[in-house]
Amino acid sequence: MPEDVYENAPSTAEDLAFLLSDDLISDIVDAVRAQDADTVHASLEDLSNADTAELIAKIGEEDRRELLSMYAGDINPVAFTEMDTELRRAALSTMPPSEVVSIISALESDDALELIIDLDEDQQRSIMQKLSAKMRTAVEEGLSFPEDSAGRLMQREVVAIPQFWTVGKAIDYLRSAADDLPEDFFDVFVIDPAYHLTGQIPLNKLVRADRATKLQELTLDETHPIPATMDQEEVAHIFRRDDTASTPVIDDHGRLIGVITIDDIVDVIDQEAQEDLLRMAGVDQGDLYRAVWSTTGTRFRWLFVNLLTAILASATISLFDATIQEMIALAVLMPIVASMGGNAGTQALTVSVRALATRELSDTNTWRVIGKECMVGSLNGIAFAFITGIITLLWFQSPLLGLIIGLAMIINLFVAAFFGVSIPILITRMGGDPAISSTVFLTTITDVVGFFAFLGLAALLLF
Amino acid sequence: MPEDVYENAPSTAEDLAFLLSDDLISDIVDAVRAQDADTVHASLEDLSNADTAELIAKIGEEDRRELLSMYAGDINPVAFTEMDTELRRAALSTMPPSEVVSIISALESDDALELIIDLDEDQQRSIMQKLSAKMRTAVEEGLSFPEDSAGRLMQREVVAIPQFWTVGKAIDYLRSAADDLPEDFFDVFVIDPAYHLTGQIPLNKLVRADRATKLQELTLDETHPIPATMDQEEVAHIFRRDDTASTPVIDDHGRLIGVITIDDIVDVIDQEAQEDLLRMAGVDQGDLYRAVWSTTGTRFRWLFVNLLTAILASATISLFDATIQEMIALAVLMPIVASMGGNAGTQALTVSVRALATRELSDTNTWRVIGKECMVGSLNGIAFAFITGIITLLWFQSPLLGLIIGLAMIINLFVAAFFGVSIPILITRMGGDPAISSTVFLTTITDVVGFFAFLGLAALLLF
Repeated sequence: MPEDVYENAPSTAEDLAFLLSDDLISDIVDAVRAQDADTVHASLEDLSNADTAELIAKIGEEDRRELLSMYAGDINPVAFTEMDTELRRAALSTMPPSEVVSIISALESDDALELIIDLDEDQQRSIMQKLSAKMRTAVEEGLSFPEDSAGRLMQREVVAIPQFWTVGKAIDYLRSAADDLPEDFFDVFVIDPAYHLTGQIPLNKLVRADRATKLQELTLDETHPIPATMDQEEVAHIFRRDDTASTPVIDDHGRLIGVITIDDIVDVIDQEAQEDLLRMAGVDQGDLYRAVWSTTGTRFRWLFVNLLTAILASATISLFDATIQEMIALAVLMPIVASMGGNAGTQALTVSVRALATRELSDTNTWRVIGKECMVGSLNGIAFAFITGIITLLWFQSPLLGLIIGLAMIINLFVAAFFGVSIPILITRMGGDPAISSTVFLTTITDVVGFFAFLGLAALLLF
Repeated sequence: MPEDVYENAPSTAEDLAFLLSDDLISDIVDAVRAQDADTVHASLEDLSNADTAELIAKIGEEDRRELLSMYAGDINPVAFTEMDTELRRAALSTMPPSEVVSIISALESDDALELIIDLDEDQQRSIMQKLSAKMRTAVEEGLSFPEDSAGRLMQREVVAIPQFWTVGKAIDYLRSAADDLPEDFFDVFVIDPAYHLTGQIPLNKLVRADRATKLQELTLDETHPIPATMDQEEVAHIFRRDDTASTPVIDDHGRLIGVITIDDIVDVIDQEAQEDLLRMAGVDQGDLYRAVWSTTGTRFRWLFVNLLTAILASATISLFDATIQEMIALAVLMPIVASMGGNAGTQALTVSVRALATRELSDTNTWRVIGKECMVGSLNGIAFAFITGIITLLWFQSPLLGLIIGLAMIINLFVAAFFGVSIPILITRMGGDPAISSTVFLTTITDVVGFFAFLGLAALLLF
């Protein structure tokens, strides 16, 4: 490799020649539209699987349909495993079943399973019938594990070696069995005659050891086998803790049945982090690739719940319509208290949701964290009581109105902090997902308390 | 391993015996408070590094200080690398400098760098002076790379092998040089005499190959060396695309200077995902471990900006105080339009922020995504125009008021969708971080437009 390749080394991914550029995408789209098959064939051949997935994700719906129907044969089946779920569903549903069968048949069993899960039930059934018996069995077994479980995530192909072998014998086996081994692996697993796991050896330890060493002497103490039914979020947590490259999966009887590798976990972590963010805003995963109608529908549900919240807030205001009639400044100022409460509450809520997801928040420190958030909320409540009090005094020349908005601010920011941190904890305790409904509950509380405290104090003190 | 260990296999992480339980934490805290040194020594000895980090994270401030000052010698230095940055800073700052030096000296160079970066400058300088010359040089070199760059993330210890060697010779070298090699590795890197990278071989390919095979024949085509100055977010993007376990890092001259492994990337992905979520709510990373005053300060800044937004909204309302005076129902209903706009806008904004972070949104599909979000916003605008229109009609018996709130709803939900999706794109184009300030701009727009459209239409049509 000549040195000048690296002179003026690029420092951002956009500059790197091996990444798919927007220019190349538009060239390919032009070729698709011009039905210039030669150019499309040649371009697709040059793309990596990740590139192909990115290309299909970024082009418009019509171009996508054209590309998939005319050039399906040029697309490596693995590219489909790199796509967003929603996009993949859309892509596969536009292709003829025979094409889908040949794509799925070309994949390893865990990838095939991933593709089949996305299809709707009718399509699933008709595809399953056309698979080879071996593949069908593997897929059916995979489907028998709960959704998002280790069993669905794991790869069935494992390197398992008897505990009484030496390093030399193990390496010779790896060489001779090359074709039967999984495509990539980081660890070999040591088993007893009943296929019970007794240990795990990272490849780099195996390679460095003397050929005469017994495998038993090399096995790690800290192998933490994962039950096939464990939720993928828990699996990710264990990977984060243990810093291993792969982790064995066992069945109810402690027998080794598969392996999960860290690159699967990267996908899970991406997905879970994304989920929290999207759910807190009431957005579905894959919204980027969903059709307009379907997106409108899922968003509608969330907005509808928020409408009920807003109506509750309005109802609170209407309790005080006589008071507002007396002093129209109240109508002008009232959104400030509610909005500050909403924002302060969301801060506490976000910390809580994230700490629960990473398991940094548990029984041990629950009360300490709640206490701290309430302190922070109260302190900022006092700070903003002064600021808004003074602004109100200057704006409306009424010290009493300044006092009222200040008191309401302290009340609402304390309440916001307390409920912001507590609601996710409570929802988690009750077995729910704190990211989904916490914000709705919180906004309801901060709006109602915000309006009630401000207008109620005004009714009490002003007239 | 007896079979019954796995009978009734646990299916959640909480049930797994190898994870740190809340009960064990409180036992250790009790022992610390009772100055029962034997129990504390024994407990700390049993904990893994991740457990120790979790223990220190979850106990109260006073217990933490006591534990760190009395039992520092029992804590494995690696445990400090497993801690949250903010917690680590707090922990290290309570320990005497000599203790910190001995912790840092016991670590590998990249871990030592990670710890030193967190310290404040004075402490940094005094610690650096006390390090060995070799460690100091390594740390200084690391500090010379930009913050959050590949150079700071990489591990200097690399397995580099000349291109003309055979597989057999390479394996023999790995065995004989065992002590000089990095603790863990997944790939060997192939270099020419000038230390330029010519390829990368996953260990499992090396192990499976015939001893007589030349390394050149095994090297992967798709080695994508990363320049040391590349931002860690870009590095994570490349790992996601390439599905490799480790990636070589090169200097400006294309020479191999380090390696980044996928477990470092898991940390980066966690951190970046967390950042987006927290920044959108105006919360700092590590808030769980920051002192009350410091947390209050960082949150205050965000809330202050939001106060300005709220005042702008109030100013908009005050333009119409005469109109509200005429019909108090306007004051009751006006938060609904603003709140629905804020929620619908946040949905579009979240999709946009996340798609920009994962690079699913680029020039190619920008207009398509904006167009789609505007369609979704308009459709939901129409749907909620009907719903709120009818509710208003029933509540206040005024068809005209129903028409006004409906029209305002359509306007605000369209505007919210357009700006929700566009603001992050615009901020990214201008080189900013879309997660930080997008929400403030958006709320300002949806509040002002929401109040202005509703009250303005009312002023125009009602009187």
